[in-house]
Amino acid sequence: MKKKYSFITTLLLSATLSQAQTADSVVVKKLYDATLSHGQSYEWLRQLTTQIGGRLAGSANAAKAVQWGKNVLEQAGADRVFLQDVMVPHWERGAKEEAYIVVGKQKITVPLLALGGSIATPKKGIQAEVIEVQNFQELRALGKEKCEGKIIFFNRPMDATKINTFEAYGGAGDQRRSGANEASKVGAIGVIIRSLSNTLNDYPHTGSMQYATGVPLIPAGAISTNAAELLSKTLKENPKTQFFFKQNCETLDDAPSHNVVAEIKGSEKPDEYIVVGGHLDSWDVAQGAHDDGTGIAQSMEVLRLFKELGIRPKRTIRIVLFMNEENGNRGGIKYAELAKQNNEKHIFALESDSGGFTPKGFGIQGAAASVFEKIQGYKSLFAPYGLHEIERGGGGVDIGPLGPQGTVLIGFKPDSQRYFEYHHASNDKFDTVNQRELELGAASIASLVYLLDKYGL
Amino acid sequence: MKKKYSFITTLLLSATLSQAQTADSVVVKKLYDATLSHGQSYEWLRQLTTQIGGRLAGSANAAKAVQWGKNVLEQAGADRVFLQDVMVPHWERGAKEEAYIVVGKQKITVPLLALGGSIATPKKGIQAEVIEVQNFQELRALGKEKCEGKIIFFNRPMDATKINTFEAYGGAGDQRRSGANEASKVGAIGVIIRSLSNTLNDYPHTGSMQYATGVPLIPAGAISTNAAELLSKTLKENPKTQFFFKQNCETLDDAPSHNVVAEIKGSEKPDEYIVVGGHLDSWDVAQGAHDDGTGIAQSMEVLRLFKELGIRPKRTIRIVLFMNEENGNRGGIKYAELAKQNNEKHIFALESDSGGFTPKGFGIQGAAASVFEKIQGYKSLFAPYGLHEIERGGGGVDIGPLGPQGTVLIGFKPDSQRYFEYHHASNDKFDTVNQRELELGAASIASLVYLLDKYGL
Ligand SMILES: [Zn+2]
Ligand SMILES: [Zn+2]
Repeated sequence: MKKKYSFITTLLLSATLSQAQTADSVVVKKLYDATLSHGQSYEWLRQLTTQIGGRLAGSANAAKAVQWGKNVLEQAGADRVFLQDVMVPHWERGAKEEAYIVVGKQKITVPLLALGGSIATPKKGIQAEVIEVQNFQELRALGKEKCEGKIIFFNRPMDATKINTFEAYGGAGDQRRSGANEASKVGAIGVIIRSLSNTLNDYPHTGSMQYATGVPLIPAGAISTNAAELLSKTLKENPKTQFFFKQNCETLDDAPSHNVVAEIKGSEKPDEYIVVGGHLDSWDVAQGAHDDGTGIAQSMEVLRLFKELGIRPKRTIRIVLFMNEENGNRGGIKYAELAKQNNEKHIFALESDSGGFTPKGFGIQGAAASVFEKIQGYKSLFAPYGLHEIERGGGGVDIGPLGPQGTVLIGFKPDSQRYFEYHHASNDKFDTVNQRELELGAASIASLVYLLDKYGL
Repeated sequence: MKKKYSFITTLLLSATLSQAQTADSVVVKKLYDATLSHGQSYEWLRQLTTQIGGRLAGSANAAKAVQWGKNVLEQAGADRVFLQDVMVPHWERGAKEEAYIVVGKQKITVPLLALGGSIATPKKGIQAEVIEVQNFQELRALGKEKCEGKIIFFNRPMDATKINTFEAYGGAGDQRRSGANEASKVGAIGVIIRSLSNTLNDYPHTGSMQYATGVPLIPAGAISTNAAELLSKTLKENPKTQFFFKQNCETLDDAPSHNVVAEIKGSEKPDEYIVVGGHLDSWDVAQGAHDDGTGIAQSMEVLRLFKELGIRPKRTIRIVLFMNEENGNRGGIKYAELAKQNNEKHIFALESDSGGFTPKGFGIQGAAASVFEKIQGYKSLFAPYGLHEIERGGGGVDIGPLGPQGTVLIGFKPDSQRYFEYHHASNDKFDTVNQRELELGAASIASLVYLLDKYGL
């Protein structure tokens, strides 16, 4: 009898499970259908990127973006929208940079952007011979003897053979983040890096760098990948080739800014929180479309979709437009600080900050094995929409500070092939975003949030 | 003993299998690495699309493309390259079309392209009141009484909620293919269709149409999706709105052209054939980048990769650049005819004609269950490269005529979200193709061909 009983139980259980799956798949389909047929994310992205544009923390545009975000979320039907005060670094590029390669009497102008956080060059710029290296080890081996008074040129490309381009970016990122410090240690007077991009073109890609304490500060800029190829070739032909660059940036006093937070109040467990967000700031030179206007627009769309379809979450869902991801993460840190201070239990936080491309899946961080398996169990619901990858890893810079509070961190993972063509460069524009790809991402995020709220972690 | 024996056999067998899988995954990785680090497909695509450009069958550019393809394949190290003669339809657009919406004394110019195969309008164009319909049923219900002497406007959009955009295209395609015939039956004097695109913009999308026998021929053109929205809105406000269009196209005598075929001779079974191809022709108004320059460039890259890595296939691999997919498929038909005539056993044929986007997988047609399962068994080898979908269905127009000979037909399936933004329109340009996405496709195709040749079907 025991066997028979458990057989029937199994039958009943799987019938129930499969009914739940069917009901869920209906809701998931509604989320996709609504987004793809009359979603608002694309229009919101258009407003943010083309009407406001570049919005580095501390800038007037960043303040406009805060106001815009608050208005849109209120109009989209949030139960409550509020701002969180946060002081942010305030770095300004100043007048446009100048740079050229000097070979004998010939000057070849190349596109350069100061790295965020860099100091300016002296007013009339700096010019010196160039030492090209691939990595810090090579630089240290050359030492002061070869590098003193020179400009160091870090030219290690992103590894084209990495299928996930974020891995290739990770493998090249030390040049931008710490190249100035390493070069300074061997007596260099300036640093230029090959832009962190896997595309050969004329757009320099900026990004943040930090000065270490105890080493002299030297200016650092990025040249386009084409310029890097040209400079490398020129150096091979003529090792005495010099480089000139002039940047006019400065770091001002920290400035007041805000995270924007919008809530849908939970119907059963209003004191448990779910965060869905992206970052509102962007580099100054870009429209900040894929980085991270798309994450902002998708997060807002999650709220709109829940309201439109009348989905009442059990837990309180917070759409968070974080400030200052690009050069300080002060918004993310502040959000987690306040969460702790206010004793807010955050179940999970999901960030979209990998571009508005066709969704591939989600990366899960900080989940117990049973929770991870439970989330993987939703794979079949996502398969009809082309998402196949629910894997360990992921998260996001802005939500990262919630990790130590036991919050499960989830990174939205779209296809990564095109991201570093645009990342931190002036071609990161609205018109590089495909409406359907953006919308599929919004619906995917909304669907996962729906499932994780419904069934818990 | 028996059990023990079979246990050991199983162990040995799975060890062998897993060694084979490891060896295969090494080759597959080499194929991806070589393509992503120094592949030629992107450069070949640049040449075909920007140096030759639009290349409708029968045109001078199509002839140039044939010569170009032959040269490139010879230089890439094919054992043999030859042309197959084929007579193709020869339709020419003539002088640029004109079109406008007429509301009272106001004329609003809109972008229009004649559909391929359409007749011209009378020299001074045609102007008439407009009847907007969504489908043939609605048109038939209106009948002669409402439609005689009018211009019929088919305005059914592609269904945005279909995740696979090719399904949405399929669901709207009858308007373009047969709209003129249906309109003619109810006495209309002309037809305009909403472009088959899921993007709202100003590019009209052309494509082929066929006249049925026994109904008067009337001219047919496509207006941009924005123009379709405008016309529909204008008609709602003013049902007496008229439309004017003038097209200058004509169908000339069939013209001589060619398929280009390049071979790598099989080392063990040279009389068994594998076809890998795309179509060399494109619509006249486009550079024919995603349709189908990318398929051509990827197919050529398969040959280059096999040569570079020293992969000697067991069977003879044929890279085929088919002519005239767009408006007649004469190249595909001719290839299959000759294969039959020459008693060439074609094991399988693979076509890339869905754009140069990030690969998702392959669609398999005409494979026995055991063969299909065997191919599905390679999924794990593709997972590290993001391909997850090996499914029934697929194939391709050019390889289709091989089906009745028992050839398994395989369609390469890239992500489909952006395809119909460019398909058959003047924005189908080289610069909409991402190099890495294109290369991932080439490596994926090469990998499958490698596996299917090695293990057979
Ligand atoms: Zn970002
Ligand atoms: Zn095609």
